[in-house]
Formats: sequence, C-alpha cells, structure tokens
Amino acid sequence: MMFEPFWKKMSDKYNVTIGGGDLMSYFSDGNNVCWFLEPELGAAIRRLHGVVGNAVTDDRYIVVGTGSSQLFQALLYAFTTPGGPEPVSVVSSAPYYSAYAEVVGFLRSELYKWEGDAYKFNKKGAYIEVVNSPNNPDGTLREAVVMNRTGNGNGKLIYDFAYYWPQFTAITGAADYDNMLFTISKCTGHAGSRIGWALVKDKDIAKKMTEYITISSIGVSKESQFRAAKIIEVVCNGTQNVGSVKSENFFEYGRKILSERWQKLRETIQNSEYLILSKYPQEHCLFSGKLVETLSAYAWLESKDNTKDCNEFLRGLKIIGKSGKICGAHQKFARVNLMCREEEFNQFIERLSATRGKGFINGH
Amino acid sequence: MMFEPFWKKMSDKYNVTIGGGDLMSYFSDGNNVCWFLEPELGAAIRRLHGVVGNAVTDDRYIVVGTGSSQLFQALLYAFTTPGGPEPVSVVSSAPYYSAYAEVVGFLRSELYKWEGDAYKFNKKGAYIEVVNSPNNPDGTLREAVVMNRTGNGNGKLIYDFAYYWPQFTAITGAADYDNMLFTISKCTGHAGSRIGWALVKDKDIAKKMTEYITISSIGVSKESQFRAAKIIEVVCNGTQNVGSVKSENFFEYGRKILSERWQKLRETIQNSEYLILSKYPQEHCLFSGKLVETLSAYAWLESKDNTKDCNEFLRGLKIIGKSGKICGAHQKFARVNLMCREEEFNQFIERLSATRGKGFINGH
Repeated sequence: MMFEPFWKKMSDKYNVTIGGGDLMSYFSDGNNVCWFLEPELGAAIRRLHGVVGNAVTDDRYIVVGTGSSQLFQALLYAFTTPGGPEPVSVVSSAPYYSAYAEVVGFLRSELYKWEGDAYKFNKKGAYIEVVNSPNNPDGTLREAVVMNRTGNGNGKLIYDFAYYWPQFTAITGAADYDNMLFTISKCTGHAGSRIGWALVKDKDIAKKMTEYITISSIGVSKESQFRAAKIIEVVCNGTQNVGSVKSENFFEYGRKILSERWQKLRETIQNSEYLILSKYPQEHCLFSGKLVETLSAYAWLESKDNTKDCNEFLRGLKIIGKSGKICGAHQKFARVNLMCREEEFNQFIERLSATRGKGFINGH
Repeated sequence: MMFEPFWKKMSDKYNVTIGGGDLMSYFSDGNNVCWFLEPELGAAIRRLHGVVGNAVTDDRYIVVGTGSSQLFQALLYAFTTPGGPEPVSVVSSAPYYSAYAEVVGFLRSELYKWEGDAYKFNKKGAYIEVVNSPNNPDGTLREAVVMNRTGNGNGKLIYDFAYYWPQFTAITGAADYDNMLFTISKCTGHAGSRIGWALVKDKDIAKKMTEYITISSIGVSKESQFRAAKIIEVVCNGTQNVGSVKSENFFEYGRKILSERWQKLRETIQNSEYLILSKYPQEHCLFSGKLVETLSAYAWLESKDNTKDCNEFLRGLKIIGKSGKICGAHQKFARVNLMCREEEFNQFIERLSATRGKGFINGH
C-alpha cells in the first residue's frame, strides 16, 4: 500500500471502464500457447520490460497467472510431470521466502518436495532451485548456488524477479534466464489484482504451465488483466514522458518513498542497543543512469545478541514481523514489511524508537 | 457466450469503472473469515440467493474463489488436512464432470485420490462425494448416492450447484447443504471473471478453504469481485423490477434462449437415424411460478447403435464434443456445449441435420 498515494493522485488517468458485455469468455487468444492471456496485457508486459530494461522478452512465451504464486506452482508442475518414483527436491538459499515451502508442501504432492536451504542440499539427481533476487526477506542479490556448490547439473532454475524493479534495486542488465517470474503486486503495488507473469523460453514448459492454470482455475481474471494492461501502459508512458510530466514517473516516485523510509529506518536503528541492519551494495543502474543502493521491500532485522529471538522482541514492541526461523534462518533475524501505508510505517518507526534504553520486552 | 447479447444490449447499465488507486490491497475485510472477499460481493451473493430462492445463506460463510474449480480444490484440502496415511477417495456418479477427475489427480496429492463413479464405490472409510445438480454433462437432477447404496457414513459431501439457476432448471427449494458451490460463469455467463463462491456451514471448513486459497493464489482478483458484485446487484434489480423494465429479467431471457435452442435441437434429433436425446422431467419452479423442464447447458447425445462411438460420429460431422468415456460413461455418449454464440449453435444444428441419410462418417 506504499504506492497508493501515487495512484490515488493519478486515479483518473488510470481509470478503466468495463461494460456488462465485455470480457465474458474463457478465451483471450486461441492462437496463443497461453490462450487465456489478454493480448493487450502481453503487449504491455513486453513494452514494460523494454522500457525498464530488466528482462529479455524476445523468444519468450508469456504465461499469465493469478499472482506469481500460481505461476510458481505451474512451473513446479511443468518441471515434474509426468512424475517419477521420487518427488523432485525443491530448494532455495536461506533465508528464503517462506511461501515457497508452504506452496511446495501443502498438498503433499508426490511430484515434488520441499528440501529447504540450497546451501545445505547435497542430493544427487533432479532438483528445482528458486532464485529470488533481490531476495525476500533479506534484500540481497542472488544467484543460483546448487550447481556451483555441488556440480549437480540436473537442476531446473526458477528466477523469481518480483523485486527486480528500479524502485527496489539497480537494474544492472536485462535478465535472460529460461524461467522468470514477475508480479504486478510488487512492480506497481496493485496486489489486489492478483496478476503475475512468467517469461518462459521453452514452448513445452509454457504449454505445461498453461495446462496447470487451466486445471487449477481455468485461466486468470480478465478484468485484472485488462486493468493491469492499462496501468502498465500508462506507467510506460509516464516513464518515457509520453504525454506526461516528469512527476508521473512511477519508478522515481517509488524509489523516493522507499529511500525516505530506509533513511528513517537506518537513523532509528543506528543507535539501537539491540538491533542491526546490514548494508546493501551500490551499483550502477542502467534505468536511472545513477549509482543506486538496493532499497529492500523488507527490513531484515538482526538481534545484536545471538541468543535473542528477534521476532519475540518485535512483538514486545507491538511490531508485527515474521520470524527468521520460518525463512530457514536463525531466530535472531526477523522480517518487517516496509511496503505498508505511511501511517503504519511511521508507527513502526515510533515503536522501534521506543527500544532505546528499554531492553528486551518479553525477553529472555 | 450464449448470454452475451443480453449483456451487450445492457452494457452501459452494468458498466464498472475502477480508478488507478482502487482495490490495491490484498485485504478486503480483515474481520471476515474469508479476508479477501469484497464485502459488496458477499452482500450481492446473499441477495441473489434470496431473490432466486435456490440456496440458504443464513448461518453460512461465503468463501470466494478463482472460479468454483479453485473452491472445489479448497474443499478437498479442507476435508483432508492434516492428511492420514491413506489418501481420501473422491467420487461422483457417472457420467461426471471430467474436470473433477483431473483436479483431484493432477498433482498426485497424498491427501486425496480420484476413485471415479460413486455407483461403483464400495470402500470402507473416509470419502468425498461430489454431487452436481443439474449434472454436467447429462442435465439430470442428482442426489448423493454412496451413503444410500453402501451405508458408509464417513462421507463428506460437496454440492456443485453451478447449474442450479432458473434458466437451466426448476428452482424447487432453497438448497440447505453444508458445502455448496456456485459460479458466475454459469449463473450470468461471465466466465472470464473467474468468480465462484462457496456457501459453507462450518467455520473451520471455511477457514481451511481460505487457507488453501491464501497459499495457492493469495486471494482472488478484486476487479472481478467488484464487477461481479455490480452485475449481480443489477441482475437482482432487473429480476425484482427495481428501476428496470420487464425485459431486463436476465433469468427469463436466459430461459427463453435455452428453450429455443432445445426446441431446435429436439426437432433436429427427432428424426435422426443415429442419435437419441433423453427427456427431462418437468417440475414446478418456485422462482417463475411455472411448470418448467430442465434445459441443460449441454446436449448429452447417445448413439442408437450401442457399438458406435458417439464423439467419433460427431467429429465426422465437424462437431466438437467430449466423449462420454472421459466422463466415466460409455463411448456411445458424447457431450456438446449449448452455451455457445448463436452462430456456433446454428452451425451445430446445421451439421447435425446433415446426418440424415448419411450414415456414420469415420464410422466403423
């Protein structure tokens, strides 16, 4: 909800109107591998990646999903069917996005199985590694690790680029991997639309993903696709100054807000007796032409005292966080979402400031 | 797409406009068990069932899904987690909607397992029976069968009421089961919106379903929910003559179109040497106050000659059908969708008429 003020201000410009007889069919484009993708959304996505320069879309199929969560599941299905006797291992470097573990495990599928931290994975045979860069929860830039560590070349890679947008990090090049996931939730902040997309090199994988989404939900909301296409188009116009003024560059706006939040957060933590925040490297951003730092969507807080449970500490301050434990990391870490509304962020800073001289509450 | 002309004619009245800053959050109502259900949609659904009289909504939780497919999976999950050593059997009376089998089987879950025809199911222990009434593909009215047949009282029941609307069948009472599924695809024809809903009696089941949808897609498109709420509200107004004229009663319109199609179809089949269509009973409809016949959304065609493959026969006439085999029935049956655009329906009738005196093409 961090970006909401931008959209509220610009609301009219991004209006969409849908008539009672519009968008009624299951089908969007029977000639496309992903037959439920609205062609306007496909075109908008290609344009967006071109404008931002964060991913290659040439020779890629676009598969749309109900959020990138559904596309992650579609890729698991595409990589593992028809299934063999053993479930395929799924890993990601800790700390990892805890939903990966949930999604892989919740239906007790015989096709795949969550095996946790990619740094601890030593099995032979097929595996799937998810690379999330910048990474949720800790904001680090990531590369695949299993192949380099163990030489196991039987891996399939999923690049989750939810946060590879200029407001969060330097765009250092157009990502050119075989299977890349994006979501409008993090790109523009329209989480309620549940629109994600995959850029997929292999046609058979794109077909299998489409099959997954067909079986699981018979496609993806046309209303959300229609609106996402509009929002992306106008974002591109604003970024390229097409019929817009400079103030309408969404990514600059996003970076400005996040940058202010990170400054406040670092100032607050700086003198903390209890918490640490790590620094992120600066890199040259091809999108802005500037040297920029990663501004993670989350604060990855660490207790100075290794024996302290960071999330418990936060809870004592009435701050809602997520324990490092459920991200495959130590309990001295906790994640706090920074993409909230301004009043919530200010409250977070206020409560965090209250730690000075107070010591651990609820605290061991 | 059968109902599209109605919506095109009325398009303006059913317009929705969404501003750039609207519907951005994951959350719709943090106090509701189903926290991603837009309150306006919940209210519209309760009003609709009241107006039509087809289901009880008192003391029921509403869970919204990305189509009723996702809700079916959410119910399977709710009924079977935490899982036991054996997958729970899932059955439905043949001929059944083939997607049930696909959805149950495609991830090779250890939680549940497709066991086919409820009439052939004789195992002890837990099971789930899906009752689809009127039934896809054959249009019959259905009740649960396993308990009556075998006395096995360990079953959970899912009532799929996708077609229990006045255009398709007599509304003979307000269904009052524990777990009932509906979808806007069949109710109003807005299949592209991917909006289904469940009416659920047990709070824990509603919570588990919500958990399923949270893990699998972090909620349901807000744009689709917003639009579905509007469409349902205006349908209710039209049905109740609130600020509308008689011609705006959608359900009467729907029944009229379907009734014309069935008449043409029966006339065409009447003298066929090759095909039969069964008759549906007439019942008193509490909604219209008339004696009405079921007008199935599908033609369930049967070859007069038991040895003939009905779908093969249709293919020879360039008619796209679905074989009875994949619905758990004999290959002498095939299903043809009647809810298509008018030109497609007329083409179907034309091609079907061409059978007279031609004999089986491609045909054994």
